[in-house]
Amino acid sequence: MSTNQRVQRRLAAQSTAPMATNNGGFVVLLLLLCLVSSPRPARADVPFPVNVWPKPTYMSWAEPHMAVRVSSSFHVVGPSGNSYLLSAAQRYTALLLAERYRPLVTPAVNITTAGGRAPELPYLTLAVSDLHAPLQHGVDESYALEILPTGAATVTAATAWGAMRGLETFSQLAWWWGRERTLLVAAGVRVEDRPLYPHRGLMLDTGRTYFPVADILRTIDAMAANKMNVFHWHITDSQSFPLELPSQPALAEKGSYGEGMRYTVEDVKLIVDFAMSRGVRVVPEIDSPGHTASWAGAYPEIVSCAGKFWLPDALDWPSRLAAEPGAGQLNPLEPKTYQVVSNVINDVTSLFPDGLYHAGADEVTPGCWNADPSIQAYLARGGTLSQLLEKFIGAAHPLIVARNRTAVYWEDVLLDQAVNVTPSVIPPETTILQTWNNGANNTKLIVQAGYRAIVSSASFYYLDCGHGDFVGNNSVYDDPRSDYDSNGGSWCGPYKTWQRVYDYDITHGLTADEAKLVIGGEVAMWTEQVDAAVLDGRVWPRASAMAEALWSGNCDAATGRKRYAEATDRLTDWRHRMVGRGVRAEPIQPLWCRSRPGMCNLVR
Amino acid sequence: MSTNQRVQRRLAAQSTAPMATNNGGFVVLLLLLCLVSSPRPARADVPFPVNVWPKPTYMSWAEPHMAVRVSSSFHVVGPSGNSYLLSAAQRYTALLLAERYRPLVTPAVNITTAGGRAPELPYLTLAVSDLHAPLQHGVDESYALEILPTGAATVTAATAWGAMRGLETFSQLAWWWGRERTLLVAAGVRVEDRPLYPHRGLMLDTGRTYFPVADILRTIDAMAANKMNVFHWHITDSQSFPLELPSQPALAEKGSYGEGMRYTVEDVKLIVDFAMSRGVRVVPEIDSPGHTASWAGAYPEIVSCAGKFWLPDALDWPSRLAAEPGAGQLNPLEPKTYQVVSNVINDVTSLFPDGLYHAGADEVTPGCWNADPSIQAYLARGGTLSQLLEKFIGAAHPLIVARNRTAVYWEDVLLDQAVNVTPSVIPPETTILQTWNNGANNTKLIVQAGYRAIVSSASFYYLDCGHGDFVGNNSVYDDPRSDYDSNGGSWCGPYKTWQRVYDYDITHGLTADEAKLVIGGEVAMWTEQVDAAVLDGRVWPRASAMAEALWSGNCDAATGRKRYAEATDRLTDWRHRMVGRGVRAEPIQPLWCRSRPGMCNLVR
Repeated sequence: MSTNQRVQRRLAAQSTAPMATNNGGFVVLLLLLCLVSSPRPARADVPFPVNVWPKPTYMSWAEPHMAVRVSSSFHVVGPSGNSYLLSAAQRYTALLLAERYRPLVTPAVNITTAGGRAPELPYLTLAVSDLHAPLQHGVDESYALEILPTGAATVTAATAWGAMRGLETFSQLAWWWGRERTLLVAAGVRVEDRPLYPHRGLMLDTGRTYFPVADILRTIDAMAANKMNVFHWHITDSQSFPLELPSQPALAEKGSYGEGMRYTVEDVKLIVDFAMSRGVRVVPEIDSPGHTASWAGAYPEIVSCAGKFWLPDALDWPSRLAAEPGAGQLNPLEPKTYQVVSNVINDVTSLFPDGLYHAGADEVTPGCWNADPSIQAYLARGGTLSQLLEKFIGAAHPLIVARNRTAVYWEDVLLDQAVNVTPSVIPPETTILQTWNNGANNTKLIVQAGYRAIVSSASFYYLDCGHGDFVGNNSVYDDPRSDYDSNGGSWCGPYKTWQRVYDYDITHGLTADEAKLVIGGEVAMWTEQVDAAVLDGRVWPRASAMAEALWSGNCDAATGRKRYAEATDRLTDWRHRMVGRGVRAEPIQPLWCRSRPGMCNLVR
Repeated sequence: MSTNQRVQRRLAAQSTAPMATNNGGFVVLLLLLCLVSSPRPARADVPFPVNVWPKPTYMSWAEPHMAVRVSSSFHVVGPSGNSYLLSAAQRYTALLLAERYRPLVTPAVNITTAGGRAPELPYLTLAVSDLHAPLQHGVDESYALEILPTGAATVTAATAWGAMRGLETFSQLAWWWGRERTLLVAAGVRVEDRPLYPHRGLMLDTGRTYFPVADILRTIDAMAANKMNVFHWHITDSQSFPLELPSQPALAEKGSYGEGMRYTVEDVKLIVDFAMSRGVRVVPEIDSPGHTASWAGAYPEIVSCAGKFWLPDALDWPSRLAAEPGAGQLNPLEPKTYQVVSNVINDVTSLFPDGLYHAGADEVTPGCWNADPSIQAYLARGGTLSQLLEKFIGAAHPLIVARNRTAVYWEDVLLDQAVNVTPSVIPPETTILQTWNNGANNTKLIVQAGYRAIVSSASFYYLDCGHGDFVGNNSVYDDPRSDYDSNGGSWCGPYKTWQRVYDYDITHGLTADEAKLVIGGEVAMWTEQVDAAVLDGRVWPRASAMAEALWSGNCDAATGRKRYAEATDRLTDWRHRMVGRGVRAEPIQPLWCRSRPGMCNLVR
């Protein structure tokens, strides 16, 4: 079903001036991207009969395309001494023999033969130069993969983490040959691969909605399959505090959604370990001083405006006590606040080995602090809310640094117009800022201030947008006009399609030097309206779109043009494989399109 | 996460003039709705400790609220002689004992006691006056349910289908009492219930995407739980023809997505029978003459422009060959066309017993017929495209009527500006029109022309809107501006939230007489970007929102105001129960809100 409106709107949107201008603006940056992502001149992108997602930086497959049978006793031969790599090797061996992936379109390849009989691939060899390089920001994830028609295959990598990327690539080059009931893998293939950005993340909010450990593990597993390497765990928020902390057990006891909806120390160990064996780092976030209503269950004395209605006067937005229902902010004037925060930082940094600690600091709401008598007195004595925030951050930041962590904050701590801190409180050496407002503009403000930036623009990378809003008793939806929009009540609508995610250039508008401070990006899954029942479809394959853009870029090395046309069939295939691996990703096109290349395009 | 934009936009949207005017415009209609839906003055709506979705027309629960234990040997006592009702009784007995539904908030009720000991409810009695009334449009679905504190319960209904509605209501009044490990059911309850509209449907498109039978059955089961009664099965489309027809086996052989992606005669029998035992009618749709590219596999000679690229010139929309990729339209000048169509109508009406046959007739595209040499000659001789459509409909309509069916068409057949038929070809006595464009305006045009209308406005009831579009190689998404919208490339975006679905009044702007011709509505699940992996979350609980609006209305009987504020908690509970029943519906609010009534509202 469709209508004139459909393409008419599409064309109207297309014909807007910006398309011309921004292409002009893009070319330079994208060629840069392409040059970085491709060490050698490549031909214009054309999908192979079997493809890898994210697309490798460089891949060749000798023509005519060949495939070699994989032995039923296939195994991985590699160095011992790194238990994570060993478990990865075992995992991929099992996956390879169990997956039985059947491509949507049968690949046109010849099965290799030698002296009349078809050779088999008995094993894959791993060669790793620095087996003990720790998994940390900036670690070398590069690898080379060679699969010979004679039945020999090698992954060569600088680190165990790069070797894992190579194993994933190898697994995606294998498929089940229906008629022959054989497992085949592409042969005559050479891949040289490395990421464009060292930080390729997914943020999951377990504060608004509790997610069982199994769902978190499945998500991390899918991240690794997409060569994403940072699981940003937004653990707590105003709605719940699900993390059991040894020194502050009351926080989860009183602040979680209840028994069976808390993460134990064992759960965290399991999740961190599971992620490590997939080359995925886990960056914990304990949001504060805002978004902390849930702390009031255990310590009401340290939380301002807790339990109050969030929007006393809907017609006076500035008077709100919180950005959304669930009011409560830590009180920087209360000594106990620092005792609790200090214990939290020590416990969390003990539980999570990663070098980054996300401290939140987003959406500090004036109305909440203004409603607190002790703070009213402080303000009456001439203090300001920014000084109050500075007092808090100034005390907490050194505690984070003392634990050998780099602190990550949401951009608000510096860029919020009402309440913010002076840069001296958050030295660039020990601080990374995560941007979410105003797209490329705020990224530029952050790097120009000398900070490293993680890009999570709500306009491109927020996976929750476009499904309306959850706030009740809202008459905005009650309108009989068929053309009435108002974004469907979704503050950051429309829904960010995979194409919008894929096409975004996170260094847009930056100079080459400024771009160096952008360490990567994260798609953000806020969960006011998402739980385990629909998680996969909301995250995948849109997160895959960012994964490729940040791994090998979103444009064609040879032409310097965006890859979106060429990426569609590859993403359809990859989504099909993910579903087979147990991830309920949403489809992007009817099956009809996949077997008719170009026929579902707007421009042929 | 959120931002000033969030509520600012919301308030901006609210403060637009139309809110005032349309409230004014609403009151009359909604009071009417309320009067219809409520036979006696009811107090202003307040949720009960345990609720039923859709909300019954009338329900009383004596205070203090009591509950009675359900015996572990609970069973349903009723008349024999209707196998569908028997299987329903067995199904609900099993569900009741197996479901173990735990409410999100423990209901504040007292367990009944008599002489010191708690009585048990041993069985439920069914009383049906007309046991053999066939399931058809307009059948009496009313029922009364009485549950006494002493442990007696009765469902009284005019028909077996009404009795099934009563059984569903009974099942929703039961819950699992954790501490006591007991099954309880509300006691001291009286329900008198009947639907506002006789046609409450869901349309599923299995032409763009094939859905396994199990997913169709689960969907129909969920429909029945929501007291929806029409499964409109959009079986075929240009992308595939998955239905195996005895007299035209080639259509599915050549036109389906392949083996294992076809519906056999046995599949159809199973689906129709499964639906009957739930009081759900199955209305088949074989879309024609447009949307028939898939017929060309078997009969290329009867399909115009098949295999051609759909949009030869993206800048010249009028020259398109189809509304979306997949061009092909039956050729009314080809005699063989009528032979095939006649066989299809005979086979499909043999397979599907329902009194309605949906013949499609939407989006006939001039460019496709204009590209056909035989039609070019016809036009050269002075013929018109509308005459061509009339020739086709004029031949097919009598074939449908000859099979004792009322024909349903999409509104285009009458309202399309380029290609349409004169009303004489589709007599109102044997024709129902389904509207999808221009909201309330087209509903009015249809009923003013004397036709019965089924409302599926794309602006309110299209469940596919707001997830972007599937057409590839579209640069519209490639824009770095953070505030750039263009509806996210979704022709009918934004996403239709449950609130938008719930608040829509399908008789908006009609006179009382005109409103009588509106037989009901259908949410429409088009599947270019939906398959089994994400079906449930895209359909539920939004379809539930329409289900209540069409069953008992969307406004408060006492106040005449929309129920949306009061419905939120009830829908959260109902969604929770659906998930427990195996339907992966999406959540509408964080759990935090449910246990804090009013705290997540915009206006307290």
